[in-house]
Amino acid sequence: MAYTIGLDYGTNSVRCVIVDVAEGSELGTAVYEYETGDAGIIIDSADHNLARQNPADYIKGIEATVKKALAQAKKIRKNFNAAKVVGIGVDTTGSTPIPVDKNGTPLSFSDQFKENPNALAWLWKDHTGHAEAAQITELAKKQHPEYLDKCGSTYSSEWFFSKILHCLRTDPKVFDAAYTWVECCDYIPAVLTGTEKPERIKPSRCAAGHKAMFNADWGGLPAKDFLSKLDPKLGELRDRLYSETYTVQTKAGGLTDEWAKKLGLTAGIPVAVGAFDAHLGAVGSGIAPGKLVKIIGTSTCDMLVSPADQQLADIPGICGIVDGSILPGFFGLEAGQSAVGDIFNWFVNYIQPGGPYEGSHEALTEKAANLKPGQSGLLALDWNNGNRTILVDQRLTGLLLGQTLHTKPEEIYRVLIEATAFGALTIINRFEEYGVKVSEVINCGGIAEKNPLLMQIYADVTGREMKISRSAQSCALGAAIAGAVVAGAQSGAYDTFPDAQAAMCGIKDKTFKPMAKNQEIYRRLYKLYKQLHDAFGLKDSSAKLGDLMKALLNIKDRANA
Amino acid sequence: MAYTIGLDYGTNSVRCVIVDVAEGSELGTAVYEYETGDAGIIIDSADHNLARQNPADYIKGIEATVKKALAQAKKIRKNFNAAKVVGIGVDTTGSTPIPVDKNGTPLSFSDQFKENPNALAWLWKDHTGHAEAAQITELAKKQHPEYLDKCGSTYSSEWFFSKILHCLRTDPKVFDAAYTWVECCDYIPAVLTGTEKPERIKPSRCAAGHKAMFNADWGGLPAKDFLSKLDPKLGELRDRLYSETYTVQTKAGGLTDEWAKKLGLTAGIPVAVGAFDAHLGAVGSGIAPGKLVKIIGTSTCDMLVSPADQQLADIPGICGIVDGSILPGFFGLEAGQSAVGDIFNWFVNYIQPGGPYEGSHEALTEKAANLKPGQSGLLALDWNNGNRTILVDQRLTGLLLGQTLHTKPEEIYRVLIEATAFGALTIINRFEEYGVKVSEVINCGGIAEKNPLLMQIYADVTGREMKISRSAQSCALGAAIAGAVVAGAQSGAYDTFPDAQAAMCGIKDKTFKPMAKNQEIYRRLYKLYKQLHDAFGLKDSSAKLGDLMKALLNIKDRANA
Repeated sequence: MAYTIGLDYGTNSVRCVIVDVAEGSELGTAVYEYETGDAGIIIDSADHNLARQNPADYIKGIEATVKKALAQAKKIRKNFNAAKVVGIGVDTTGSTPIPVDKNGTPLSFSDQFKENPNALAWLWKDHTGHAEAAQITELAKKQHPEYLDKCGSTYSSEWFFSKILHCLRTDPKVFDAAYTWVECCDYIPAVLTGTEKPERIKPSRCAAGHKAMFNADWGGLPAKDFLSKLDPKLGELRDRLYSETYTVQTKAGGLTDEWAKKLGLTAGIPVAVGAFDAHLGAVGSGIAPGKLVKIIGTSTCDMLVSPADQQLADIPGICGIVDGSILPGFFGLEAGQSAVGDIFNWFVNYIQPGGPYEGSHEALTEKAANLKPGQSGLLALDWNNGNRTILVDQRLTGLLLGQTLHTKPEEIYRVLIEATAFGALTIINRFEEYGVKVSEVINCGGIAEKNPLLMQIYADVTGREMKISRSAQSCALGAAIAGAVVAGAQSGAYDTFPDAQAAMCGIKDKTFKPMAKNQEIYRRLYKLYKQLHDAFGLKDSSAKLGDLMKALLNIKDRANA
Repeated sequence: MAYTIGLDYGTNSVRCVIVDVAEGSELGTAVYEYETGDAGIIIDSADHNLARQNPADYIKGIEATVKKALAQAKKIRKNFNAAKVVGIGVDTTGSTPIPVDKNGTPLSFSDQFKENPNALAWLWKDHTGHAEAAQITELAKKQHPEYLDKCGSTYSSEWFFSKILHCLRTDPKVFDAAYTWVECCDYIPAVLTGTEKPERIKPSRCAAGHKAMFNADWGGLPAKDFLSKLDPKLGELRDRLYSETYTVQTKAGGLTDEWAKKLGLTAGIPVAVGAFDAHLGAVGSGIAPGKLVKIIGTSTCDMLVSPADQQLADIPGICGIVDGSILPGFFGLEAGQSAVGDIFNWFVNYIQPGGPYEGSHEALTEKAANLKPGQSGLLALDWNNGNRTILVDQRLTGLLLGQTLHTKPEEIYRVLIEATAFGALTIINRFEEYGVKVSEVINCGGIAEKNPLLMQIYADVTGREMKISRSAQSCALGAAIAGAVVAGAQSGAYDTFPDAQAAMCGIKDKTFKPMAKNQEIYRRLYKLYKQLHDAFGLKDSSAKLGDLMKALLNIKDRANA
């Protein structure tokens, strides 16, 4: 009997799960909500692009969750013994870089910078660096187009160098004080294993490849010359970053005595190199070639793998294609939607906050479920937070069309769900256009679990059966699986990911199959969605929209007939 | 000392005012809310196009309001004497045709039809006849394009023949039982003067010209041959309609003994021929050449006059150009927006019904007033109820664009106001493009009175000073002015409209002047509005929208800088 721990650092909280490696069941789980800011995020009312986090919250969260989860495991299984925890895996949000000093200590821990938001962790959804992202993209297009070929032809404001360059430009004091910048997913394993010193950290292939243009083809990180053109200081920083990266089957180190004591675990047990939540979530959902894993939360990540020894085209608009970023031996392909749950949250929390509809997701979903496809005459674009895949454009916004004097909240709520489904289909189509077959779709994340209406709409819109990962905590489970693989068979765990996944992953019994009648209507609606998508999303589209409102009304009339 | 009565039949209620003709002051006023239906409107949850009214409510409203208003006048002015009421004027919504029998009695008063909504008054905003409207437009384009030249090149579903033809097609029993159809504004004066018999009614030039294609140039109503092609029975109906029409300076008849007794007025006092609320509202607001009167309510009517002895181009998209429809001796020009207040009501009542924002117009307006132009990054089209001027297209719908995850209700509320302002500017521009100068803008209606934010936005968007009619009841005042002109100078009133208007109309002291800083931003936003307007509103537009969201974000960034 062996157990591993998965630590899953999300946008608002960190979760710890204790997993039985024999069957993947979760014996204990605990959540720590970050204390600083608004639901764990430091925001700026004058600049909606800003989103930071306090690294101290990350560290507090370790002890708070691990001890509680261990205690729970003991309650659930009498013969549970913390000594049988044989490995730890970590996943985090990303790109969430933290400026650190020579010792790897976050600058925000110093008196000098503790009040400065630029010294905190720059959360994945911080978009303050959008101008810098555009500049990086422009320079790469001219001088190193290959850098962009693997990351959707556009470097995002959410990514590593955009953020660092923005800091350099707007707060040089912080930039100058930082010895280097460390991804959150590298920082946590380093803390646990006492390897925070930058030269000792084993950087995550996942983070480096997807967010920092790291690729063996051009010798690792982007050339110093390239970074220097953006700013000479950025070029200098390259020397203080890294040249090697590691997949999650690598041991970042052994748990320090200090942490072992504090947590009640065995010192020296292996901690896996970190990866992003979506990537380990895909692992925890049983990702394999042909299986698309959709992690649906505030945003989505759409994950696929493709054998690394086979030819793979560069797919425009896909966030990244990185060898080993999800599973060793496979290209990890990452796409995603910038906002899904966040759009529904926006509608419920900001626009529709009370009154006769009660303003809850549940009440709106119940009413929306009574509507037929096309019946509202509405159509929306799911771009309230920009478009990640396939347009890779942060400077796009939401659109709602077709409202009359009778349009009701539940109609808008439903059409926002449909818009995210159309966005999901656009991603699947893009993969398949470039030869990456999607033969199975496995969903995970809270919304997939809780909202059967959304799952049915996704099935109807995509024309594919929607399956749901058995674990409610696929990311944490994926981290625990990484912990199991670094522990290895000699510790009672596994030597390979396929072995670990076969034992520890599964699918729920309830799946959602497409309904032909709905599919036909959604096919027509998707054509209109795509017209809007191209008209507003492509620079040189000359889409004819003069009949679009009437086409929607025709669909509406038919649906109501 | 002489007084007149104005009876103003609105969408939800009828209002009576007792006016002192010397200065236009209102001594007594009373309102009767129609009893039948939802706020006076019979609707059909399965067909949002349907909107009917019960003519019995119209009649009940006469006694209910006149007696109450007279009583109030007596309280306010001790020497007031109902015997000094020298004339009555009437305005109503329109086109609101009522099917009647040979005696002019509404079919809905009969046992046979009392439960049938098709036998009721077909309220102006009933759009069930949209297919028939399209057919009438199509046939006229082929055979009598001149019919459309005076009414914006499209015959609307809101108008007389669209409704009658739809009744003929869908409920032939009602159509066959109707001897003829009478406009509400013809029906009320007929009731008061005992001239309900169709051959005795003096039909309103205003209603006939704007809604029934009546024009002296082609001998009155559309040719029998034309109507017969739509349906032979419609051709036959023409013989039972009318061949002469009258302006509001004509006496419809004298008040009957019965009504005089019932109301406490003098028998035989003149009742003016009726007109639509907007037209008499323009009169009550002091309309004259160059003075645009905007009547802002659930929708708007935008009224201008142009001397009938001068050349005037046909103006595409304008609802109507009719000699004498507003003032005798002038072409009356009518344009309008299908929804203004209704859009704000929709947002407050349907979408944003409670919670922290309290969901009231007042609360949202207060918050919206703190925002700067362009600051929200939002843009909307004001088409939730279609577009009357300049597109004349009922099958257009609303659009909201630019929303993020932070967009707040008050931002949407403000941008909906701005959208209606852009719609208003589009109308002004259209008039001026065709040589009708707009040198002054006078607003009336509840929203103009109550919402200084809206007035300021209209001033900033149109670049024109916004003035507000002194009377809070411009339509009823206009009706009372018509009552004064039919009474004439010999009764202590006036012989001409200019004389009556000079004495009885006025402007409020508080006006709204455009602010240069806001104008500049709105000029940029209007360009984007016009791009959307043309892209979605014109059949063959190939507007490039690929940069529109970014242009809005640039305006937003500047506004927030």
